[in-house]
Amino acid sequence: MTFTRMLANATQKNNSLLCVGLDPDPAKFPEHLRGRDDAIFGFCADIVDATADLVCAFKPQIAYFAAHRAEEQLEALIAHIHSNHPGIPVILDAKRGDIGSTAEQYAIEAFERYKADAVTVNPYMGRDSVDPYLAYPEKGVILLCRTSNLGGSDLQFLDVGGEKLYERVARLVATEWNRNGQCALVVGATFPAEIARVREIVGDIPLLVPGIGAQGGDIEATVRAGRTANGGGLMINSSRAILFAGKDEHFAASARKVAQETRDAINQYR
Amino acid sequence: MTFTRMLANATQKNNSLLCVGLDPDPAKFPEHLRGRDDAIFGFCADIVDATADLVCAFKPQIAYFAAHRAEEQLEALIAHIHSNHPGIPVILDAKRGDIGSTAEQYAIEAFERYKADAVTVNPYMGRDSVDPYLAYPEKGVILLCRTSNLGGSDLQFLDVGGEKLYERVARLVATEWNRNGQCALVVGATFPAEIARVREIVGDIPLLVPGIGAQGGDIEATVRAGRTANGGGLMINSSRAILFAGKDEHFAASARKVAQETRDAINQYR
Repeated sequence: MTFTRMLANATQKNNSLLCVGLDPDPAKFPEHLRGRDDAIFGFCADIVDATADLVCAFKPQIAYFAAHRAEEQLEALIAHIHSNHPGIPVILDAKRGDIGSTAEQYAIEAFERYKADAVTVNPYMGRDSVDPYLAYPEKGVILLCRTSNLGGSDLQFLDVGGEKLYERVARLVATEWNRNGQCALVVGATFPAEIARVREIVGDIPLLVPGIGAQGGDIEATVRAGRTANGGGLMINSSRAILFAGKDEHFAASARKVAQETRDAINQYR
Repeated sequence: MTFTRMLANATQKNNSLLCVGLDPDPAKFPEHLRGRDDAIFGFCADIVDATADLVCAFKPQIAYFAAHRAEEQLEALIAHIHSNHPGIPVILDAKRGDIGSTAEQYAIEAFERYKADAVTVNPYMGRDSVDPYLAYPEKGVILLCRTSNLGGSDLQFLDVGGEKLYERVARLVATEWNRNGQCALVVGATFPAEIARVREIVGDIPLLVPGIGAQGGDIEATVRAGRTANGGGLMINSSRAILFAGKDEHFAASARKVAQETRDAINQYR
């Protein structure tokens, strides 16, 4: 099954455009988990089990695992999602970008080692740096377009001949890179007008939208700007606001509560 | 000691602008190493020991380790370089790029976990995505500018108001991001005219130049275009042409021979 189909199915089954981002920061873990060798896996697996019927996707952020020498816990976590919650796609948030021979290795890392269903990729090095990911036609390739951070404007907002750089990226992906219908784009919730602009350019291509919750993006504006005609086409990501909703041993129940509220708040505007 | 100082010292001591890229592809290893659990470490350590007096830096490419679940071998390799060849800087080629809170984790990965002296970073997400690396003032931060692959032109060659995007990146780094004198730039050897243009923009900032050897860049043109007034300021990278110069148990001696020829060819034009 392709990532795009898997995403559409999970969106429908769980009536959800919510993507839960798994950015495990051990310093914020509840007391009872600290010091455990598999604390990162344990924390994330509990969050996953508590929210799997509320999401359209999970998005582990590899930096949080790599900083803590926790690659094996990341492998175990993705295997846990696939076996306990089949049908929920896993997006490996890695933002890789390199020349073809190296990108082939990164594609092996994401798709064969970690068995992710999709990976985020940086477009700065151009089409041939993305081809090795596109060579897995059943996998999703999610290109950075307009990122949620303030500094995103430094390059992405430059005028490149009548349009902004992020608009050019959106256009390139929609018209040239998405030959297999497997691409998606990252567009930050902190800029709803730009979500609308990207939607206008790319038709029904899915958008991964970080920036609600801790980063302050507005849910109503995001959904109205980014939804497709049938009320879908969005993976609205929340990480910290859900992961760290509770600070004690009931953290997973607290996370579920916030995830449910967030899903429902999103659905109000679809 | 800062990366910049370490690089200058190694350049002088070894009379070398050659950076050996460590991109270990097990399929290309000599027969006697195959199947060994630590083959990746063993192969790279032998290359390092055979060439350490000929280089200004080593550059392990993390994708080749990550694709093979070899993070521990990468840690061991960098530790091996630091303890057996002190003073030779290690550049972790990772091309990371993410929002600040995630970039902090990547900086921990590169500088604290792997103990690299410098890391390559993608500028697409802008200044605040680079700040967490700059927060380690003794470390090198090497920004992608004009990459050696053909698709590099897709975005980097766009006109952003009288200059190309890669020129804007060079200017931003030189005038705004390099407050601690710790930045360098990646400029591919496949485009000597653009190396010259970047040199013109950035003054004496070091340039990491991939693309000679297997990628076909011209050594004379590269050196003439990129050297600073004192014949330095370059880390000219070769990976495959050196690593896989020999195919048998004498591979390290073969690598040394090609590394020496390459260093000397570079020095002809300094």
